[in-house]
Amino acid sequence: MSNTHTEHFVPAGWEQEIASRIDAIAQALTHMGADAALLADNIDLYYTSGRVFNGFTYITAQGQVHYYVRRPLGYENEPCVTYVHKPELIPGHLERLPHKLAMMADTMPQAQWARLRRAFDSAEAVDGSAAMRQLRAVKSGMEQQLLRESARRHVSVYKQVPTLYRSGMTDLELEIEIERQARLAGSTGLVRCHGDAMEMFMGSLLAGDNADEPSPYDFAMGGAGINLSQPVGANGSIIKLHTTIMVDMGMNYGGYMTDMTRTYAVGNVPDIAKKAHQLSVDINHRLAREGRHGVEARELYATALEMTQEAGLADYFMGHRQHAGFVGHGIGLETNEAPVLAPRSRDVLHTGQVIAIEPKYVLPGIGAVGIENTYIVQPHCLECITTMPEELHEMGKPY
Amino acid sequence: MSNTHTEHFVPAGWEQEIASRIDAIAQALTHMGADAALLADNIDLYYTSGRVFNGFTYITAQGQVHYYVRRPLGYENEPCVTYVHKPELIPGHLERLPHKLAMMADTMPQAQWARLRRAFDSAEAVDGSAAMRQLRAVKSGMEQQLLRESARRHVSVYKQVPTLYRSGMTDLELEIEIERQARLAGSTGLVRCHGDAMEMFMGSLLAGDNADEPSPYDFAMGGAGINLSQPVGANGSIIKLHTTIMVDMGMNYGGYMTDMTRTYAVGNVPDIAKKAHQLSVDINHRLAREGRHGVEARELYATALEMTQEAGLADYFMGHRQHAGFVGHGIGLETNEAPVLAPRSRDVLHTGQVIAIEPKYVLPGIGAVGIENTYIVQPHCLECITTMPEELHEMGKPY
Repeated sequence: MSNTHTEHFVPAGWEQEIASRIDAIAQALTHMGADAALLADNIDLYYTSGRVFNGFTYITAQGQVHYYVRRPLGYENEPCVTYVHKPELIPGHLERLPHKLAMMADTMPQAQWARLRRAFDSAEAVDGSAAMRQLRAVKSGMEQQLLRESARRHVSVYKQVPTLYRSGMTDLELEIEIERQARLAGSTGLVRCHGDAMEMFMGSLLAGDNADEPSPYDFAMGGAGINLSQPVGANGSIIKLHTTIMVDMGMNYGGYMTDMTRTYAVGNVPDIAKKAHQLSVDINHRLAREGRHGVEARELYATALEMTQEAGLADYFMGHRQHAGFVGHGIGLETNEAPVLAPRSRDVLHTGQVIAIEPKYVLPGIGAVGIENTYIVQPHCLECITTMPEELHEMGKPY
Repeated sequence: MSNTHTEHFVPAGWEQEIASRIDAIAQALTHMGADAALLADNIDLYYTSGRVFNGFTYITAQGQVHYYVRRPLGYENEPCVTYVHKPELIPGHLERLPHKLAMMADTMPQAQWARLRRAFDSAEAVDGSAAMRQLRAVKSGMEQQLLRESARRHVSVYKQVPTLYRSGMTDLELEIEIERQARLAGSTGLVRCHGDAMEMFMGSLLAGDNADEPSPYDFAMGGAGINLSQPVGANGSIIKLHTTIMVDMGMNYGGYMTDMTRTYAVGNVPDIAKKAHQLSVDINHRLAREGRHGVEARELYATALEMTQEAGLADYFMGHRQHAGFVGHGIGLETNEAPVLAPRSRDVLHTGQVIAIEPKYVLPGIGAVGIENTYIVQPHCLECITTMPEELHEMGKPY
């Protein structure tokens, strides 16, 4: 697992992958009538080069790519790299200045946007965020391999969860042991989220009634957290008998994240918990059969809601005191990518997209129940890559 | 440590603190000729309310504050809170529309900035980032208390470092054990950074030659990391005899972070390592004596560089293959606040600012050495709050 300085700026083995991503971006630029894109966000830099660097990726509608780099040093002889200590120097290096320049308005701070507009003062600036989001949602074979490896490691971590538990533990203490296992299994720990208001540590573990604490974040579940500086997830309370523990911790490999939730029962729990948990499993299975290339994301949400209503559990669906407005989401380099499985989503599933489906129920006095899997959209179904037992598992009992 | 839903939107005990912050912001607005500020970033929301929420803080130059909230639910009866599901509804709730509205161009994405400008279409939008950064740099008594508590816990974690080490461990395995201790000591884990290109997990542990790997981030030190998706810090290599291990892991309490570095020697290390480490200690002590209210930040940098040059160690100062351009930085809600101790910094130290000073040396074939402490700027000195032994400590030997 030891990583050292690589010889080429685009890492060995990534050349073809990057070339094909650049081609797709060039086509999108042509489609939007832009001459070039200037990318600055860490996610976009990684996506277009195979590494996070400090600087900019410049891509033309003709499919040329060049990296304007501030750091790291060490790539001075690479033909695709020019070192610049400020973006104002980039136009001087270009053969032809763009007339219409795409930048990412969703992520680029206003101050940087304004500065780059001045640096490219002859160009009209247009927002390429939506196009980039759609492109990035569809994962290549190589990306799918990285996601499968993340899923494999994710499963290996979760298989240890029941035996990490000790009677009298707090939710936070259990979460910390799972975090440690995820790190030992190769997670970098960082969970990248789209949107400034979103932030997450390594995931969320919700025990008992803390699952019903409303949170400010647009995640599926809440939780009070240990502090109002970061009010989400475990809150440090002791895990009680006859409650449930929902484990929704992230994993990543090569920058690609998988999402998976499993729920554990501490001793006996009321029948409604078993029923709601089984409903979540059933919804996952049904959406995996019905989801495929060409299906509207909102149809999948509607099916999940309908099955929930038929079971009489709508009051607990995606929260109780506060409800989340979706039942699934794309995932990859960020934990909340396209498509979104929500009532008014306009997304249509496409082969190669990767989505997490998480129908969950919050039951007052008991806790949260349900599962979440990560799926690859295939032509005729959704393929689950987080394969492990889905039942409401008895905490303490090994898998 | 258990956290649950609090009754009031501004948490109990924070009322006076928040009121005085709002007053200071109102004064800054008056000074810049703005009628109001609209804040949207999680850090600014926490700073102006005592909680992270999804929504906006609206502050007038007359010192009135109101929170426009989307989530969490539960504060419907609070007089200072209005629920809005989109920002376009805010102007309809205002008695008087602003003519000049300050927003934070440093952090607000262009798309949101443009949307808010349309929502407040009669107002001129101005950038309040620099003023806010200056305000936030000076910590109140309450903030200093939170920082002192973070420092106390930080020290308790570091005291365990030497005994977490096992021969044959990788740098990453040691880092993971320290992360676990920091979490058990109450860290939320999240390290908030200013600037889109910056991101960090829980900190950095650099063993041996990995310290000399250039990183893209604007941190004091580099490291290859385990993957090019996040190329910084530990790289998974086995810790070797006769090398150094630099531990620079973050800690936080109540949202406030402290910074501290200590260095450990694995077996005997060459004299140059001991000399460079002692120089870092000496620089810290001298800057703590010479730093005070009114001193220019760049003077402190100049002193550190001068002492380094006199010792003949300039080649190794703040890196070797790649050098960082500063020797210290403000810290608080973010890990990189004002002031910056750099050659061309215009910052002047002010009583109540909190800064981390980290003169470090990267020695090829050995590793990184040096220490970092967090200090509160006092009228006549810098007060160290991360007080614990500073010498190059023998790894494995308890404190």
